[in-house]
Amino acid sequence: MSGFDVGNLKYVFEPKSIAVIGASRNPKAWGHVILKNIISYGYEGKVYPVNPKADSLLGLKCYPDIRSVPDDVDLAVISVPAKLVPNVMEACVEKGVRAAIIITAGFSEVGPEGEKLEKEVVKIARKGGIRFVGPNCMGIFVAKTRLNAAFTAISPKAGNIAFISQSGAFAGTMMYWAAMKGIGFSAAISVGNQADLELSDYLMYLADDETTKVTIMYIEGVKDGRKFMRALEYYTSKKPLVVMKLGYTSSGARAARSHTAAMTGRDEIYDVVFKKYGVIRVYEFDDMFNIALAFANLPLPKGERVGVISSGGGWSVESSDALESLGLKLPPLPDHIIKELDKVLPPFWNRRNPVDVVATVEPEPYKTAVELLMKDPSFDTVMLIGYGNFGRISNLPFIIPREDAVAKEIADLVKKYGKPLVVVNVFGRDFSNVKVFEENGVPVYLSIQKAAKVIKALATYSQYLRNLKEKK
Amino acid sequence: MSGFDVGNLKYVFEPKSIAVIGASRNPKAWGHVILKNIISYGYEGKVYPVNPKADSLLGLKCYPDIRSVPDDVDLAVISVPAKLVPNVMEACVEKGVRAAIIITAGFSEVGPEGEKLEKEVVKIARKGGIRFVGPNCMGIFVAKTRLNAAFTAISPKAGNIAFISQSGAFAGTMMYWAAMKGIGFSAAISVGNQADLELSDYLMYLADDETTKVTIMYIEGVKDGRKFMRALEYYTSKKPLVVMKLGYTSSGARAARSHTAAMTGRDEIYDVVFKKYGVIRVYEFDDMFNIALAFANLPLPKGERVGVISSGGGWSVESSDALESLGLKLPPLPDHIIKELDKVLPPFWNRRNPVDVVATVEPEPYKTAVELLMKDPSFDTVMLIGYGNFGRISNLPFIIPREDAVAKEIADLVKKYGKPLVVVNVFGRDFSNVKVFEENGVPVYLSIQKAAKVIKALATYSQYLRNLKEKK
Repeated sequence: MSGFDVGNLKYVFEPKSIAVIGASRNPKAWGHVILKNIISYGYEGKVYPVNPKADSLLGLKCYPDIRSVPDDVDLAVISVPAKLVPNVMEACVEKGVRAAIIITAGFSEVGPEGEKLEKEVVKIARKGGIRFVGPNCMGIFVAKTRLNAAFTAISPKAGNIAFISQSGAFAGTMMYWAAMKGIGFSAAISVGNQADLELSDYLMYLADDETTKVTIMYIEGVKDGRKFMRALEYYTSKKPLVVMKLGYTSSGARAARSHTAAMTGRDEIYDVVFKKYGVIRVYEFDDMFNIALAFANLPLPKGERVGVISSGGGWSVESSDALESLGLKLPPLPDHIIKELDKVLPPFWNRRNPVDVVATVEPEPYKTAVELLMKDPSFDTVMLIGYGNFGRISNLPFIIPREDAVAKEIADLVKKYGKPLVVVNVFGRDFSNVKVFEENGVPVYLSIQKAAKVIKALATYSQYLRNLKEKK
Repeated sequence: MSGFDVGNLKYVFEPKSIAVIGASRNPKAWGHVILKNIISYGYEGKVYPVNPKADSLLGLKCYPDIRSVPDDVDLAVISVPAKLVPNVMEACVEKGVRAAIIITAGFSEVGPEGEKLEKEVVKIARKGGIRFVGPNCMGIFVAKTRLNAAFTAISPKAGNIAFISQSGAFAGTMMYWAAMKGIGFSAAISVGNQADLELSDYLMYLADDETTKVTIMYIEGVKDGRKFMRALEYYTSKKPLVVMKLGYTSSGARAARSHTAAMTGRDEIYDVVFKKYGVIRVYEFDDMFNIALAFANLPLPKGERVGVISSGGGWSVESSDALESLGLKLPPLPDHIIKELDKVLPPFWNRRNPVDVVATVEPEPYKTAVELLMKDPSFDTVMLIGYGNFGRISNLPFIIPREDAVAKEIADLVKKYGKPLVVVNVFGRDFSNVKVFEENGVPVYLSIQKAAKVIKALATYSQYLRNLKEKK
């Protein structure tokens, strides 16, 4: 792992047994919520609640002290008042615990006294070889070990997107938001103050994690720039990374300092570093997920040339503007495609890229057009806008089953031709063909500009990998 | 009206009687769909279907020719094959019809022959004093006269937003999209080829239309620049205008030429003109509606200074970045507000703008914070992020009724202080407090960046009006 010493880090993600220290009877206490989430999400290892004032909690036998737990403990989740954390960490060292997650707040983020306390905890942990997440964090979620040691009311689906968040509120928001939208995660980490484990360590782990295809990261600043760059270099040689780095204005930087005590750094430097390592930078919340979903599901394009099929002239103009303004290319339509489309489209169709399917109610011509563009080497990515809404919008319900069946056939073309297809439905997600596309591995986006950003991200990372290969 | 001759234009919007020429029995024909929509949306004037091959249609007596209609006809909706349109227009002139909507396509958009036909129709109409919409359009919708002479399967609600679209597909999309989201319209016009009535004419009408508070417009190009500027000057002195002008890249301009034959013009010129007349330019579909909803519902701010209240540090950073990068200001929090908030927030709250309410589960501190910022002259707009989701997200359902009740109290502060409040709920619209805010006149946005654009738009138009006043 390029000289990285991640030591016991893997026990954060793959513990065989967990102690919850500070497990509580009070249903509003984090120590209660987290124990409940660990149990209810179905963690399959052993769980030991630790609380000197209880005999049992949520049906599990309770221990007064971690030292009294009869078996080995891989991971301790700590949610006790800040001033008790050093003693608890000491006990964990004695017990031979390998990793910890410190939920408790009140450390370096509150000033010099907290900073002192945090350093003490780090010292104890280092001495005992314990690697830990936090403090001052919202916990973690790991799909492969069915570990939800975080406090969201609903757990996300298992999936192949990992996310790392420097903001606890963001971590909670993202998990809930993604769960509402049915987006699946391989892992989610709220990094807190990063007193021990930091962004770079998690990236190194995820680079080799087989359940993760792409990582998204919310950050405000980086502690160790050189280490971060080494981690990026290793990680992005294997997998795509999407980063929302905020604090890029003076007001934003001030807000970040008071939030995570992050030194946001000069924004241009981040831009240079991200560019150097093929990292996709975004500025809006939903772009992280939009782009990650594409990386998680679609093949990478071979270049920047996009063929567009739309069901209306306005969308052809809008997509042309959106793609070109991101530096993507719209090559002309080859003659043989024009000839083929002449057979299925009305005589007055536009005969250019974007192909305007001229609001035909039939779904089949869309498939013909998509397949012609997928097959042709002039296009690296195909964008499809406005497919399959006539059944509902024009109130022709009898067409819907055909729209859905053809959507499945269109989605299958992605595997057949190994080329990405980016689908836009500006009306919303509430159409049955949207479900068909997504169940067959093709994400659907609600805005042409958002979809254009997705295509740009795929093309950028693909180019990065090609450059990397050439250098070797 | 600044020397504009809109003549019989008002009969497009306020006809006392309508003839549908080309009314059809075939349920897929536009002549059928439009007649059905006129009847089913509840138009209260008289409706005369014209079709020589039918005695009655959809329960109405049918006439073989418009000349045989026994009463006066204010508006003719024409949906007959293109080559018959000149004769039909001739008949309309004879009948003394005052205005028309030509749905039929196949005119200037298809080449020189169509252009000739179009000119012939214009000549006949001019001679008879008939003003007309189209040809090659999707019709119009007018809430105040309950006139839906357009072909969307569902009619939007009555509201105070007007929209004008140069693209038929966009017009259809927008109306359906808005109807799905419960957005109300005063009027909607698909302008088609603008052979007679053009963008500028509609703007002049809407400027004086009492049911319209704000207009949104999708355009690709303008025919008569000088006339357009005169219309903008008059219109924006009275009401805000939000424009999505596409075709701003070379690919986009080419697509526009093949779509509406629009000469998109040099984009910088549009920017200059829009800026000169206080027009809000947007580049994304949903921004049109986001901004129009704010203009339709909120008071205008007195300047660019924004006070932000958020329920998490990440959002404070994100909003600071989003606002500052649009040129808005985040002034420091006055001492007296800090003192007041010390009483209701936990001791470690951040004491700055954005105010981080530190994820308190209680809704009341949010109201206190909003009211303090609304009352204080340091802030022109208040932005509230992340309010009222704890009931569901943290699974504390008993809090929801209080969250909703306090949302109503917060919304009422807008009227009390005459200052705009822009609310963001990043999770989505599926929370009961979102409904409470919107029913009480405060639109809720799903993204911080989108909400920041809304605030910028309000501030920009407000500044335009102030400058205008000073000049007088």
